[in-house]
Amino acid sequence: MSRTNLPLSGARLWDSLMEMAKVGGTEKGGSNRQTLTDVDAEGRALLRRWGEAVGLTLTVDRLGNMVFRREGRNPSLPPVAIGSHLDTQPTGGKFDGVLGVLAGLEIMRALHEAGAETEAPLLLINWTNEEGARFSPPMMGSGGAMGVFTEAEILAKTSFDGAVFGEELKRIGWQGTADPTELQKVGHYLELHIEQGKLLEDGGEEVGIVTHALAQSWFEVVVEGEEAHGGSPMAGRRDALMAAAPLITAVEEIARSTVSATGEPGRGTVGVVDIYPSSRNVAPSRAYFTVDLRHGDPDCLARMESALKARAADLAASRGVKIAVTDFWHSPLTPFDPALIQRARDGATARGFKWRDIPTGIGHDAVYMARKVPTVMVFCPCHGGLSHNEAESITPEWATAGMQVLADAAIATARLVSP
Amino acid sequence: MSRTNLPLSGARLWDSLMEMAKVGGTEKGGSNRQTLTDVDAEGRALLRRWGEAVGLTLTVDRLGNMVFRREGRNPSLPPVAIGSHLDTQPTGGKFDGVLGVLAGLEIMRALHEAGAETEAPLLLINWTNEEGARFSPPMMGSGGAMGVFTEAEILAKTSFDGAVFGEELKRIGWQGTADPTELQKVGHYLELHIEQGKLLEDGGEEVGIVTHALAQSWFEVVVEGEEAHGGSPMAGRRDALMAAAPLITAVEEIARSTVSATGEPGRGTVGVVDIYPSSRNVAPSRAYFTVDLRHGDPDCLARMESALKARAADLAASRGVKIAVTDFWHSPLTPFDPALIQRARDGATARGFKWRDIPTGIGHDAVYMARKVPTVMVFCPCHGGLSHNEAESITPEWATAGMQVLADAAIATARLVSP
Repeated sequence: MSRTNLPLSGARLWDSLMEMAKVGGTEKGGSNRQTLTDVDAEGRALLRRWGEAVGLTLTVDRLGNMVFRREGRNPSLPPVAIGSHLDTQPTGGKFDGVLGVLAGLEIMRALHEAGAETEAPLLLINWTNEEGARFSPPMMGSGGAMGVFTEAEILAKTSFDGAVFGEELKRIGWQGTADPTELQKVGHYLELHIEQGKLLEDGGEEVGIVTHALAQSWFEVVVEGEEAHGGSPMAGRRDALMAAAPLITAVEEIARSTVSATGEPGRGTVGVVDIYPSSRNVAPSRAYFTVDLRHGDPDCLARMESALKARAADLAASRGVKIAVTDFWHSPLTPFDPALIQRARDGATARGFKWRDIPTGIGHDAVYMARKVPTVMVFCPCHGGLSHNEAESITPEWATAGMQVLADAAIATARLVSP
Repeated sequence: MSRTNLPLSGARLWDSLMEMAKVGGTEKGGSNRQTLTDVDAEGRALLRRWGEAVGLTLTVDRLGNMVFRREGRNPSLPPVAIGSHLDTQPTGGKFDGVLGVLAGLEIMRALHEAGAETEAPLLLINWTNEEGARFSPPMMGSGGAMGVFTEAEILAKTSFDGAVFGEELKRIGWQGTADPTELQKVGHYLELHIEQGKLLEDGGEEVGIVTHALAQSWFEVVVEGEEAHGGSPMAGRRDALMAAAPLITAVEEIARSTVSATGEPGRGTVGVVDIYPSSRNVAPSRAYFTVDLRHGDPDCLARMESALKARAADLAASRGVKIAVTDFWHSPLTPFDPALIQRARDGATARGFKWRDIPTGIGHDAVYMARKVPTVMVFCPCHGGLSHNEAESITPEWATAGMQVLADAAIATARLVSP
């Protein structure tokens, strides 16, 4: 069986998406529901009400991960988990993360309505801090659960504005007592997410079956030169920003020009810049910026890193400044589970959707889950590839299609017992 | 008479410089005495004690400018003023501004010690907010006095962190009742300042006689693109920072390549950069930065401005972003007073100093004074041209030489009556 006949409702899913978007809703139509803020707590409380209304049992672990359980006919079977995240970027949209959580909720609602049972228990997970905007790195909840980070190191993380993760988690009232690493015993993990690119929309596909995650490397760059008055002659200046600017430009050049044998280029982003002392008429002595490099071919990613470091060394030498490029975070190329991938493809075919295999260029909780648990992701197209943007948008039809493919694969895995 | 025989003490000047440097002194040996802070108030109080100890009468105007008066034999003559500023950059040195104020103080001390009189009254002025670091634009005290800005607009200025100029001036207790525009009746104005370049040191000169001030134009640039997730493909991105970076680089290129008929290049600085939303894995939708362009030839400055705006338009078109380059502040080429220039040259020659004529690339209170009052500046060399830097340094010999030339020109102008 690759297609469930549960009473899944695309309309109910859409209503819930619109309802959740109001929590931290922004003037431009997005959501600012950053992790461990008061609005994060509000979003969590809404999800708890919705989950408990359909008989789910909520457990919260020590990292704040919310795990709803729907018991299976055989409670000793490893559960089948569906999950994603409710937290957003400062200028987040309505769908990034939220779609996956609320599609899982809709599956639970349909099972409840139908009075259906599955052999294996089902879990619905809302992971803490997927975005990594307020507390870096991203995907701390799933990473902590899968043993990528220790609990202690996560709880001690601080934000750019000095808040401490563990304190904020307690402050908003969402630190539970469960051991997050218990989630390593999950049998299978499935996640629906918006694509955050435009390959599906451009190709006219309604569904993407995600086969693997690109390798990623994040860096911090610090350029140290010398302050000089804005009226001093150019000769002899060691302006940190004037060395940083061409290195920022190089991040883009390197991403575009590092192309794999299959014709795939890389991705490169500088998201944070900070210069010192920050006065209109002082040439800066210090420039700090972050670099995020990604590629579908690990060798290409290694070449991008080398090119960045070589360019930094050249600029340091030619401009008489110091440039330090420090490794900040790395995520290897991650393949998803072949059996789950095939099950998702079969569901999409059985539903008559136009679909394609696709890699993810973006980290997801599923990528950490895949280190310990057979995992698959399903992508929903998003207009113009826009995400981490208040204008992020999808159609109700796309949301429904993705939710149906997710449901088919999850239910087939947990083995539905017809009511 | 081009050389006074007053008992001027280079050692006493140096001691006072070191004493004042402790007010807001930094670990790296500089001073952080930003305008209208508590340490600014402390520096002002120290100067008041020193001034009153040698019989000077202090008046404070509504912009906080401190004006000490030493009466002349003929009180109705327009006074001869010496001035500069005690405020510093966040990472300021010990000499920028302070040397000019304390050299003036040393002249007052020597006159007092000698029991000497001048025909014209003498003034010693400490101008409010020369630096423009905390409240922009710079040189508000002298600009307000000379009618470049209105009192109301200065008092309403806000800092990057939201403080209001007028409120801060009251808070530190240094708003007086005198009308700042009364200073337009000053007869002559003289200012000693460090060069903040290295032409004098490289040329082996002990003194620079400043003939004119370069023209300056300051801008604010805002680039507006579109946010995108760091894992989204590069194609189709409209990354504001990737458009800003080559424009920042262009500021330097334009400054270096715009050379006058006399072989003089321009100066270009980007001192403040701010990007939004500032998250490691989000390509920024908005980049803001400041631009400070200067040139000794007004036509060259106009060409630099055009080149900047043309490059911005090119980048906006090629990258699908909006770029606004907004005028923020302009200061025209300002010639100093030929008679005072000649008097300063004569003094330097009579003292046997190695000196040269030099333009200033940097705005000074003297530049605003020159709009209404015959003015001259004297430059003191500084090591490596370093300034707006905690490591800013000069020798006691250079400080003494500059102070002597300043004294000779000021005393000759105010006409010393031998005791």
